[in-house]
Amino acid sequence: MSIHVRVVTPVTTCDPLTLDSLQRLARSDLVLTTVEIEKGPPSIESEYDEALAVPDTLRRIVEAERQGVHAVVIDCMGDPGLRAARELVSIPVLGPAEVSLHTAAMLGEGFSIVTVLEKLRPLFVRMARMYGVTERVKSVRSINIPVLELSNNPSILTKSLCDESLRAVRDDGAAVIVLGCTGFVGLADAISAFLRAETGIRIPVIDPLPLTVLTAAAWVGAGISQSQCSYRPEVFNGVERV
Amino acid sequence: MSIHVRVVTPVTTCDPLTLDSLQRLARSDLVLTTVEIEKGPPSIESEYDEALAVPDTLRRIVEAERQGVHAVVIDCMGDPGLRAARELVSIPVLGPAEVSLHTAAMLGEGFSIVTVLEKLRPLFVRMARMYGVTERVKSVRSINIPVLELSNNPSILTKSLCDESLRAVRDDGAAVIVLGCTGFVGLADAISAFLRAETGIRIPVIDPLPLTVLTAAAWVGAGISQSQCSYRPEVFNGVERV
Amino acid sequence: MSIHVRVVTPVTTCDPLTLDSLQRLARSDLVLTTVEIEKGPPSIESEYDEALAVPDTLRRIVEAERQGVHAVVIDCMGDPGLRAARELVSIPVLGPAEVSLHTAAMLGEGFSIVTVLEKLRPLFVRMARMYGVTERVKSVRSINIPVLELSNNPSILTKSLCDESLRAVRDDGAAVIVLGCTGFVGLADAISAFLRAETGIRIPVIDPLPLTVLTAAAWVGAGISQSQCSYRPEVFNGVERV
Amino acid sequence: MSIHVRVVTPVTTCDPLTLDSLQRLARSDLVLTTVEIEKGPPSIESEYDEALAVPDTLRRIVEAERQGVHAVVIDCMGDPGLRAARELVSIPVLGPAEVSLHTAAMLGEGFSIVTVLEKLRPLFVRMARMYGVTERVKSVRSINIPVLELSNNPSILTKSLCDESLRAVRDDGAAVIVLGCTGFVGLADAISAFLRAETGIRIPVIDPLPLTVLTAAAWVGAGISQSQCSYRPEVFNGVERV
Amino acid sequence: MSIHVRVVTPVTTCDPLTLDSLQRLARSDLVLTTVEIEKGPPSIESEYDEALAVPDTLRRIVEAERQGVHAVVIDCMGDPGLRAARELVSIPVLGPAEVSLHTAAMLGEGFSIVTVLEKLRPLFVRMARMYGVTERVKSVRSINIPVLELSNNPSILTKSLCDESLRAVRDDGAAVIVLGCTGFVGLADAISAFLRAETGIRIPVIDPLPLTVLTAAAWVGAGISQSQCSYRPEVFNGVERV
Amino acid sequence: MSIHVRVVTPVTTCDPLTLDSLQRLARSDLVLTTVEIEKGPPSIESEYDEALAVPDTLRRIVEAERQGVHAVVIDCMGDPGLRAARELVSIPVLGPAEVSLHTAAMLGEGFSIVTVLEKLRPLFVRMARMYGVTERVKSVRSINIPVLELSNNPSILTKSLCDESLRAVRDDGAAVIVLGCTGFVGLADAISAFLRAETGIRIPVIDPLPLTVLTAAAWVGAGISQSQCSYRPEVFNGVERV
Repeated sequence: MSIHVRVVTPVTTCDPLTLDSLQRLARSDLVLTTVEIEKGPPSIESEYDEALAVPDTLRRIVEAERQGVHAVVIDCMGDPGLRAARELVSIPVLGPAEVSLHTAAMLGEGFSIVTVLEKLRPLFVRMARMYGVTERVKSVRSINIPVLELSNNPSILTKSLCDESLRAVRDDGAAVIVLGCTGFVGLADAISAFLRAETGIRIPVIDPLPLTVLTAAAWVGAGISQSQCSYRPEVFNGVERV
Repeated sequence: MSIHVRVVTPVTTCDPLTLDSLQRLARSDLVLTTVEIEKGPPSIESEYDEALAVPDTLRRIVEAERQGVHAVVIDCMGDPGLRAARELVSIPVLGPAEVSLHTAAMLGEGFSIVTVLEKLRPLFVRMARMYGVTERVKSVRSINIPVLELSNNPSILTKSLCDESLRAVRDDGAAVIVLGCTGFVGLADAISAFLRAETGIRIPVIDPLPLTVLTAAAWVGAGISQSQCSYRPEVFNGVERV
Repeated sequence: MSIHVRVVTPVTTCDPLTLDSLQRLARSDLVLTTVEIEKGPPSIESEYDEALAVPDTLRRIVEAERQGVHAVVIDCMGDPGLRAARELVSIPVLGPAEVSLHTAAMLGEGFSIVTVLEKLRPLFVRMARMYGVTERVKSVRSINIPVLELSNNPSILTKSLCDESLRAVRDDGAAVIVLGCTGFVGLADAISAFLRAETGIRIPVIDPLPLTVLTAAAWVGAGISQSQCSYRPEVFNGVERV
Repeated sequence: MSIHVRVVTPVTTCDPLTLDSLQRLARSDLVLTTVEIEKGPPSIESEYDEALAVPDTLRRIVEAERQGVHAVVIDCMGDPGLRAARELVSIPVLGPAEVSLHTAAMLGEGFSIVTVLEKLRPLFVRMARMYGVTERVKSVRSINIPVLELSNNPSILTKSLCDESLRAVRDDGAAVIVLGCTGFVGLADAISAFLRAETGIRIPVIDPLPLTVLTAAAWVGAGISQSQCSYRPEVFNGVERV
Repeated sequence: MSIHVRVVTPVTTCDPLTLDSLQRLARSDLVLTTVEIEKGPPSIESEYDEALAVPDTLRRIVEAERQGVHAVVIDCMGDPGLRAARELVSIPVLGPAEVSLHTAAMLGEGFSIVTVLEKLRPLFVRMARMYGVTERVKSVRSINIPVLELSNNPSILTKSLCDESLRAVRDDGAAVIVLGCTGFVGLADAISAFLRAETGIRIPVIDPLPLTVLTAAAWVGAGISQSQCSYRPEVFNGVERV
Repeated sequence: MSIHVRVVTPVTTCDPLTLDSLQRLARSDLVLTTVEIEKGPPSIESEYDEALAVPDTLRRIVEAERQGVHAVVIDCMGDPGLRAARELVSIPVLGPAEVSLHTAAMLGEGFSIVTVLEKLRPLFVRMARMYGVTERVKSVRSINIPVLELSNNPSILTKSLCDESLRAVRDDGAAVIVLGCTGFVGLADAISAFLRAETGIRIPVIDPLPLTVLTAAAWVGAGISQSQCSYRPEVFNGVERV
């Protein structure tokens, strides 16, 4: 039986790059579908954007469960709606920030996050605290390109990510790089190759969305989902869900 | 000049008890006004309820600033919308959980939270982690009465709070009690008197809403507000706010 | 292309139960092979047992990489040799304790480990500290059955695990159960069903070996491995490996 | 009824600047009185100075309670005698370091302390550990001017504070500045304006003494004081105080 | 050359038991001398007692250095004056609480402190935080006998310590016992024997004063003392001491 | 009665420098003997080296106990085999890293480790986490000289250690220096003198092996050893050891 993972994009703009990258993960036994929200912000670059994105994101996640999907991945490094969604459905709901930060903590002693804008730094600091990995965060760096302009100049984007990642390794002591925006999907290999060329050693670069989709499949295969002790079942649209 | 603090209630039901309790705080130089949201849940007992409450709560907070209010207090122990709101306005926005947990950490070595329902326990555990006071939390206890039934039987409510608070002190080692729902407003004195009668010593019981309103006034008086390094100014309804 | 994961058992006894359970994970694109060490202890129940198991375990892991395997999983909840192995090979090496403890931290606020013998408790306490999840560990419980007697009486084994898991949930506040011995493989579903019957809610029970094998496949799929900043390449038997 | 807060200065020198600054806080319902000690050091710049200041400071605090004062604030960023005083009186005793560090933790993700002399740095590091906010301290900077020379050259003092505060923001990642000496009273607004001009954003600068006085008033208004579980009542001069 | 360690007792009462116990530590190359303060409390059972004891304790420590003593041990588990004294002298100054808590952390995963009175519990909680070992403290238990009555009934004293130590091991998970009052000197062996008889295993019981004296000798032998980066040299009675 | 401490060197090369340095510690009542392993690596510069060194190191430690030795010190800053050895013998087993890191935490607020090679940095980071002193580590610096070349050029070795130690103090905020290789034995005084000349203040430099030998003697004198709650007695070569 194949595993069906739904990627819910909590913004109203659809990035074809993401779809392409994700389809490369599909296997005979792994079905990937994607959906974006209808009502919410065009991009997420603040706590406020997240707050606006959450209600429709939750609706999409409940819909996924009703359609028989086995796990949901929220397509944003702010993990918007993660905790509320886990109260609403029985299937696993995964956020790329939570999965990436814990995975980075397993791959090396310290890691850095490289994201789009400096203004997102405090959001990552708060998530690290929430997820219990503060001690492992060496730095949060940014490339100073807004989300909606990421596709404007691919070569500048890649170069900026390479440069900031190298600074994180050399100046901040990062042993692992976590890409801090799911819009960076597909660029990890180039950055990793650059770091290897510059430092002579292999430094993992986490591409959060593919890693989280594959981790979701692993959780489904292992028969685990978020605990209802921590996320008590909740009414949604008048229907008790337990 | 008097200080104007607005209490924004992030649910659609209005509790007259709260208004009465708050008016006792008003002084010649402290003006208190209250408002509830129009669109959202009737009560907040989950992450999902919080998510639904946030958008209209933010609208009310921006409105308060436009009306010349000096500080806003969110009237819910989940601090819904606290971080997003701080991106939207320049005036201080305070959450009763954040203020109460930090104040409790100053009053004694460890504290317990006594709240309405067991299902809220993980939310408080996560907030303690977010606010950096995990080490100080001795327990989260609940009285098993839903928010909307709190006013049904006042004597049972008070007795339940007294009993659980005493257990927190005797069994869990709490030195301070934090009431875990702003709907408990006005009951701290009775619980504190009960604890003194039972233990022979003075144990502070924090009534979060009044404490947070007075702390808001202190912040205004001291000329401080949340840092824009941590909460970068954000567009709201098309108006750049910096 | 299929992913090849090698399970290296760091004891000299082979458990057919494990092989059966693992084969259920095999998919068209996931090849699983297993091997045990030739020189070492018959079971691992102490730091001393681990120390004796490590040299031959490392030999098996280097052998796996030379054979073209894509990832290695160490089949023991003490993660023996994990850090040394990561210096010796480029392919990902995963320990079931590290993966299970981080995964449990994602599934709920706190977790308990249920293991074979009380004497293993300090080893888990030290691993939790090493992996940075101390705050999340609610308890380490044991069923008082040595590893080599686990298969003697399956029904007593299952019942003991169910009972201790329920105590961990009810008395210690665990939201997630981590089985503390890879010899418990295949029993998670029965325990989970028991917990649901007793508590009315869904509480995840982590079966470490299958979860770690699937996580290894996810890491291979995502193109990541341990960082050489944290695990510098090391000579093995006179051959520089970088 | 008005609230009476007593500021106890734990040195033998009286700073008229402080009195002026504090009187600006007085309201119709807030009475402020000040007193200094008679026996002790002229300034506090070490643990040793603090130790000498404590006995007479405690005498002044007990005296304040006997005179019907509602709360006491210790006028020194070392919080000398804070814990002993809390054993001696029932009224709240507040230290400006404890209040400022916790308040800073609420205003932003990280903060820096700017104090008089480098030699005070370890004292602040130890206080941060005692108060549980170590993770939030980005740096402790100093202006290299002894306490007793602060009033010699006001413009150099202000400029030095501005410069070090800006370095804390730019180089150390501080989101909030805490002035590390109560002798800096009244200078926060100028520093905050300077930081805004340089960075373009609003960065709170905490003036510890006014904030602590207003917080003391808030605690009195909220009916809370230190817990006698953490500060057991103590004999003072032969009079049992419980 | 022999090493000279001075034990400074920060109370005005002299306990002959202590002298006897300490003299058993003397070796051909270890000279022990003791002195008590002249002005201060008769016993230390609170932060207030400590505050009163500190000034004369500091005088005695400076005196010791002037007399050519090689290291000073403060004879009280509150470590009164430890940090101020380290600013005043170049020779090592050791507190039995700091040494015992760090040593306990090396001997086992968790430890409990057994002290005289329940009212001292928060003092130990705060010291554990200051010394960075909070995570290791399993409990602080007390025998409910005031310091000045310890010698009234030796058999009851020993039995109470044995009983509470056993409870700490059985109920709280302590792997090590730290005696929480230097007045318990000489009783560790009896308690340790009792614990071994009851549990069948060897559980270390730390007698703080002898351990700290021997640790002081080790520091002198190793040529180390407190850092002047953390304890900047300080004027004492008008004499600059650097 | 004299105390007999055995230094077990977990490599197959014998360093006469170490023997000389240690013999200077011998006193009338302190007997020091040394032994190296027969089978293992020539030096320890990785987790892999440590893994290979452990089995024979354990054999040497058991042998020491059988010969009536009172305490064992492992002569390597990786503390190889420390935890396994503590399961095998009743006498205290000490690792120089554990003792040095805890001692450094007592001597000052923060410390730096200066070691041989950059590749050892993650090992020290992991040990600091295991020993609970992460917060205190300011940096791990290296002189880029392999262990087996330390004696090639003594003056370069000393100069490199002085330079990196000074950088740790000036740039990283270290208040204490911990030498990160037992092969640096005997060099602490020269480094300390250099730091004093450069900074004007006294900064302790910990020479781990002598300090650990003297601490071992202190533990024997105080009658304490590792807890069997944390290190349960273990069979060794078929002989039950309890």
